[in-house]
Amino acid sequence: METIRDRLLEAGMTLLLQRGYNAVGLQAVLQATGTPKGSFYHHFRNKEDFALQAIDRYMEQVHEGLDAALCDPAQPPLARVRRFFEISREKYREEGHLGCMLGGLGQELSGVSEVFAGKIDQCFRDIAERLSACLTEAQQRGELAVDEDPQEMAELLLNCWEGAALRSRLRRDPRPLDDMLEFYFARARAD
Amino acid sequence: METIRDRLLEAGMTLLLQRGYNAVGLQAVLQATGTPKGSFYHHFRNKEDFALQAIDRYMEQVHEGLDAALCDPAQPPLARVRRFFEISREKYREEGHLGCMLGGLGQELSGVSEVFAGKIDQCFRDIAERLSACLTEAQQRGELAVDEDPQEMAELLLNCWEGAALRSRLRRDPRPLDDMLEFYFARARAD
Repeated sequence: METIRDRLLEAGMTLLLQRGYNAVGLQAVLQATGTPKGSFYHHFRNKEDFALQAIDRYMEQVHEGLDAALCDPAQPPLARVRRFFEISREKYREEGHLGCMLGGLGQELSGVSEVFAGKIDQCFRDIAERLSACLTEAQQRGELAVDEDPQEMAELLLNCWEGAALRSRLRRDPRPLDDMLEFYFARARAD
Repeated sequence: METIRDRLLEAGMTLLLQRGYNAVGLQAVLQATGTPKGSFYHHFRNKEDFALQAIDRYMEQVHEGLDAALCDPAQPPLARVRRFFEISREKYREEGHLGCMLGGLGQELSGVSEVFAGKIDQCFRDIAERLSACLTEAQQRGELAVDEDPQEMAELLLNCWEGAALRSRLRRDPRPLDDMLEFYFARARAD
């Protein structure tokens, strides 16, 4: 059953993705969810705490995508890694091609907030770690060259994806995402 | 001679890069430059106009970097393209590893402002066009494979760079930038 906290976090993710952090007032969150202010402060200490918990909720979805893509033994490892980004691309499409909330909040807040910078960098590290495990398997199966470092290749893939997601957001167009995946996977594969 | 308008735009670029758009008040800009409010409105219609002009000023610097890197006939074309990003990386370092203002404002504002989304996408297109011309030369000299599309390769390079710049900003560390350049130029080169 969806709780008030769930509803607030869902609305928070939507608003933060579209408008960013500073442009979203508490009032907009309360209005979008029909929640009185007291309920908000029952669940969240303040707006920062709310956004940090929205990031945690966002990461739950990311890990669901990672589970769905990486844990499919029917697919070879590189295809599984690629599948994760295709799932993400579909998610972005459903949301109106607004890209990735981590990239948005990361850019907006990391110049002034060590809390958000550290939090979001850790999210990227967690995603990269899961991708890296699958890339290690790809290497063991000969899909990835033995002289590549799976950890570095995972970080690189994720970082390039985030840049493509920015461009996709600017243009409301998934093509930069597709082009980036095409380039990376054509080049990552061992000959 | 530096004019009041120059001083306001310089301060604007610094503040927008660090804090983003919504977190920068007009008061902070006036205070940083010791400018009375009337002078600000003599040069700029409002905060949006100010930020758009700060982006133009930022792009002047980007084009200076492109001129310095791409117009050096002593270097082969791919090395010239790479040099542009090395110049950008040095600029980021001098500014405290805060990454790229276009990426920051692009992420923050493009979900709600078509004006900023269109403006910043056009900036990226302009940069990609100049890189593309040099990549075409690289292709003519056999440095880039004939089956690559220089325009696509330029867009891709720029987009991946922006993602690496986000990560570099989160960690105040140039390494994601270096890793990205290493990956791209090792793979872009014709064998």
